[in-house]
Amino acid sequence: MSTGSAGPAAAPRPRDQADVRRHNAAAVMAALGAGPRSRAEIAAVTGLTRATVGSIVDELRSGGLLTEQGARVPRGVGRPGIDVALDPSGGAGVGVEINVDGLSAVLVDLTGNVRHRASRPGDQRDRRAADVLRAAARLVDEAIGEAERLGLVARGVGVAVPGLVDLDAQVLRVAPNLGWREIAVPERMTRAGAGAWPAVTLDNEANLAALGELWSGGAGSRDSFVLVNGDVGVGAGVVLDGRLHRGSRGFSGELGHLPVAPEGPECRCGARGCLEQVAGLDWILRTAGLEDLVRSGVDPMSALVAELAAGDAGANAGVAAAGAALGVGISALVNLFDVDTVVLGGVYATLFPWLEQPVRAVVDRRVLSARWAPITVRASTLGRDAAVVGAARSALRDILLDPLGGAAA
Amino acid sequence: MSTGSAGPAAAPRPRDQADVRRHNAAAVMAALGAGPRSRAEIAAVTGLTRATVGSIVDELRSGGLLTEQGARVPRGVGRPGIDVALDPSGGAGVGVEINVDGLSAVLVDLTGNVRHRASRPGDQRDRRAADVLRAAARLVDEAIGEAERLGLVARGVGVAVPGLVDLDAQVLRVAPNLGWREIAVPERMTRAGAGAWPAVTLDNEANLAALGELWSGGAGSRDSFVLVNGDVGVGAGVVLDGRLHRGSRGFSGELGHLPVAPEGPECRCGARGCLEQVAGLDWILRTAGLEDLVRSGVDPMSALVAELAAGDAGANAGVAAAGAALGVGISALVNLFDVDTVVLGGVYATLFPWLEQPVRAVVDRRVLSARWAPITVRASTLGRDAAVVGAARSALRDILLDPLGGAAA
Repeated sequence: MSTGSAGPAAAPRPRDQADVRRHNAAAVMAALGAGPRSRAEIAAVTGLTRATVGSIVDELRSGGLLTEQGARVPRGVGRPGIDVALDPSGGAGVGVEINVDGLSAVLVDLTGNVRHRASRPGDQRDRRAADVLRAAARLVDEAIGEAERLGLVARGVGVAVPGLVDLDAQVLRVAPNLGWREIAVPERMTRAGAGAWPAVTLDNEANLAALGELWSGGAGSRDSFVLVNGDVGVGAGVVLDGRLHRGSRGFSGELGHLPVAPEGPECRCGARGCLEQVAGLDWILRTAGLEDLVRSGVDPMSALVAELAAGDAGANAGVAAAGAALGVGISALVNLFDVDTVVLGGVYATLFPWLEQPVRAVVDRRVLSARWAPITVRASTLGRDAAVVGAARSALRDILLDPLGGAAA
Repeated sequence: MSTGSAGPAAAPRPRDQADVRRHNAAAVMAALGAGPRSRAEIAAVTGLTRATVGSIVDELRSGGLLTEQGARVPRGVGRPGIDVALDPSGGAGVGVEINVDGLSAVLVDLTGNVRHRASRPGDQRDRRAADVLRAAARLVDEAIGEAERLGLVARGVGVAVPGLVDLDAQVLRVAPNLGWREIAVPERMTRAGAGAWPAVTLDNEANLAALGELWSGGAGSRDSFVLVNGDVGVGAGVVLDGRLHRGSRGFSGELGHLPVAPEGPECRCGARGCLEQVAGLDWILRTAGLEDLVRSGVDPMSALVAELAAGDAGANAGVAAAGAALGVGISALVNLFDVDTVVLGGVYATLFPWLEQPVRAVVDRRVLSARWAPITVRASTLGRDAAVVGAARSALRDILLDPLGGAAA
């Protein structure tokens, strides 16, 4: 299949030895992402020589990023190999999610395990941004303290927000559902923090949820998929051939404002009938008669799930209608991007058993290619935590991509 | 800005000498795509040594793909260089477009110049597929005959169709507006042709229009843009970082079935209120009172443009309403892909002076990031011919990407 290249690019530029070694060290870290391996297996997976693998493993072990494990049962002929693994105490990332209906934070170690989790449900629209950022900073302080108790070094903090993020400036340009504009979240959170923090980076929640899904191994590393993250707002993170598609300015995946009901209610974005007005959490809770729960500071999802499971007619009809509207949005995504997999994250992951059928019915009707190319719709392997776990893991990317620099730090 | 990679890929595989030379030859051809250059300029642009450039140019000249031109006015110091250019007689591609409202064909030489053009307006929905394919084959026979008269060798035939194309199988899966399903267009056209044809390849019209725009230099070679091709149907070709994004199965860019009017008329795809029902050519001609022209075998566009220019109220209102609906579709594209440029092709290129304002008004309101990142909406540099010219040029890709193989053939 032609790739439609405009023509060959210039020849690859020569690399110096340090570049090559950095690249190879990152390849060794990546090879261990799915679990422990012997040096021979690492060599086979990366295409590096055994000598190179041995030397890099030694350097990363002395930097505290890798550890050795006892021999597994021997495979095939030859003596059993000693396995090498990512060192769980090699470092940890803090993830924090600022969402319309609550705040949450996790601490994730180098192997991807969640070691600490905290959440503060409650409607953030009633609070001043300064108060919300202070509360989020307290969650980060807690997670860093927890890292210390666990003998882990917090290497970075990732912050997920439901809005347009200017990545270069590290500024939240607009989060319509929070009513926030032009807020330098990392700078303000760092100032509000109690202790010394590692670097803080801000990103869009749907993008981080998609990265979380990609890194968790829920998708193949070269796969294409769209993660649709549902909360009060609805966003999408687009992964094409194993890479997040951020777009020209980093603003891709704004699915929530797709028109699905032109005569529908006015949206905070200024337009009418946007998807999130008829498929977002506010709408679902309203149709289920649970809208007061959000403002009361209780996480409404367990109450909603209980009503759905008990067969409550209003709740079931509301989620089915949201699923149908979501199906229209997903159909547009698939028709435009031609991805074969759509992953539901955020509250949509929790509601997946009730959303699946209504979404499928619309997708089968509206996706032109559905007859020739089946589409998988499934819940995120990280469930509702995809964004906050993605944020924590993104804070570990520097060390995974440049482990020699990271080990020296 | 992080690219969100899942981790480094394996080290690049070693290349053999023939690979390297093929790659370098393609780089030389690409360097000449924008016009003649001296050998020194080619070396500077490609990063190759002067000796390598000299040797490749010699081989491509003897293969008939490059030609020398007299010295230009000397630039700077040193003796004036002899320029090298793509040889217009080095080969030509035939493009043919099968559309709902007519057939057209072009012959394009290696330098990108259109050397012959023919069209047969008329509604193809009234005809059997076999008759349409025979008529299209006659246009190809004509173009090949014209190539011979011009002393050109036709190196390939590209066919553009308004539907889902299975590129591997070279089968048109479905073209809802033509009412066609499962047609092996290249095979059937080749059988219907009078003479011996070069290879025939089938592709979606919007994808070919986007490639035509990319190769014509209307967009920068590493740019991202979406080309929205309007006719009776509406499709999009998505170019990300200078490459056509085809999607997982080659079915990307199906914009025409985006819901913009859920209570709107039923579409041939089975859903309701699809964009092309309220922004396609049928709808525009109907509101302008010109719908009978299509079936009469006359190209309705000149009549429509005349009415618009004369200030006809119905025609102007119809195009403005189509522009507003198109603006909703374009806003969805920009919100999802985050491209900064949208190019209008097909009949939308012709209608651009009347579409621009209504499209802009909606885009400025519905694109969330518009305030921080301006969006360019413009007509295709190839006008209405983007798809058919893209088809012809795609038939020359083999020779541009592997000119040594092509020269030997």
